[in-house]
Amino acid sequence: MPRLYDLELSGNCYKVRLLCALLKVPLEIVPVDFLAGEHKKSPLIGINPFGEIPIFADGDLVLRDSQAILVYVARKWGSEAWLPSDAAALARVVQWLMVAENEIARGPNDARLHDKFGIELDIGAAREKSVRILGILEQHLATTNWLAMDRPTIADIACMPYVALAREGGLKLDPYPAVEAWIARIKALPGFIGMPGISPDGRTT
Amino acid sequence: MPRLYDLELSGNCYKVRLLCALLKVPLEIVPVDFLAGEHKKSPLIGINPFGEIPIFADGDLVLRDSQAILVYVARKWGSEAWLPSDAAALARVVQWLMVAENEIARGPNDARLHDKFGIELDIGAAREKSVRILGILEQHLATTNWLAMDRPTIADIACMPYVALAREGGLKLDPYPAVEAWIARIKALPGFIGMPGISPDGRTT
Repeated sequence: MPRLYDLELSGNCYKVRLLCALLKVPLEIVPVDFLAGEHKKSPLIGINPFGEIPIFADGDLVLRDSQAILVYVARKWGSEAWLPSDAAALARVVQWLMVAENEIARGPNDARLHDKFGIELDIGAAREKSVRILGILEQHLATTNWLAMDRPTIADIACMPYVALAREGGLKLDPYPAVEAWIARIKALPGFIGMPGISPDGRTT
Repeated sequence: MPRLYDLELSGNCYKVRLLCALLKVPLEIVPVDFLAGEHKKSPLIGINPFGEIPIFADGDLVLRDSQAILVYVARKWGSEAWLPSDAAALARVVQWLMVAENEIARGPNDARLHDKFGIELDIGAAREKSVRILGILEQHLATTNWLAMDRPTIADIACMPYVALAREGGLKLDPYPAVEAWIARIKALPGFIGMPGISPDGRTT
């Protein structure tokens, strides 16, 4: 059974739990004491020199970075639907994985790190980047149901958590109805699970 | 012929030119007037709402994000060698594409944006992140010739440019001999091309 070094409150850990739940992949959850910095100490720092979670282990394979883990899980246990292998379709999905790694991480994720966890960072810049990416998402999702394809892919799973948690970073989603409808569509997927701050029943908390 | 909306001094544009050169993919280069903000105005902002270059067009397909473009070029014109499709190997490559998008972008790329282009940003944070990722790269490359596999992949092409340009962000590569040897190995690939700041003949400028 694959193993996830996990923090319940991490949106990056959650996206791995969510994809595994949707694909019915059993997962051994190993809670990491984040506040004590367990991920920055031995033995975890030896497994992942970046000092971050999630870490995903499947047999001898150890992976870091939530987006890369989604790629692995989708390719190994999912169908072509969740991560297409055709050049154009694959690149379209990867574009949005990069948005999760960059614009969403430096926007709503950073704003939440500041507000909820007291991490010191430039909250003004994080809010500004959040508004920018939420506007781009709203514009994009006004004309399509899913980010990358005509069906849900790991692009949606990668991008949704920190957007749905934006309120915990002092941001409002009300001005973004297409984004809210997209989150609701993801919540309606069979097997969907929530996390603290992302209710599985469609409520916002 | 695919078209690249390009800036000669951009490491992100360069990585697309480099992979196309290595794979002998002909490319129509469309220079973008970056200083005049052409990428943030119509018509380019209509093609890429993120207001960034590179933009890559192949027939009806338009792609943004240099890492996603590398995925497309490698899958369409490269062999399995540059972007493997096996779950574990693909995820290993994607891990490093994410390092290019995150740690290298927020480290040596940001430091160069500040020093060379006068962009206002937290240069202290950028230098700190640079030293951290250079240390991780040095440790990793001390035991392997290439980032993700036992051969060059798009992981190397994605990560190399802003590392090789680190001097333009006030950073020194001398403390990182394994990183310098890795850059030299990439420069020795058949078909390698340079850019301003990355000499094709092994010199550092």
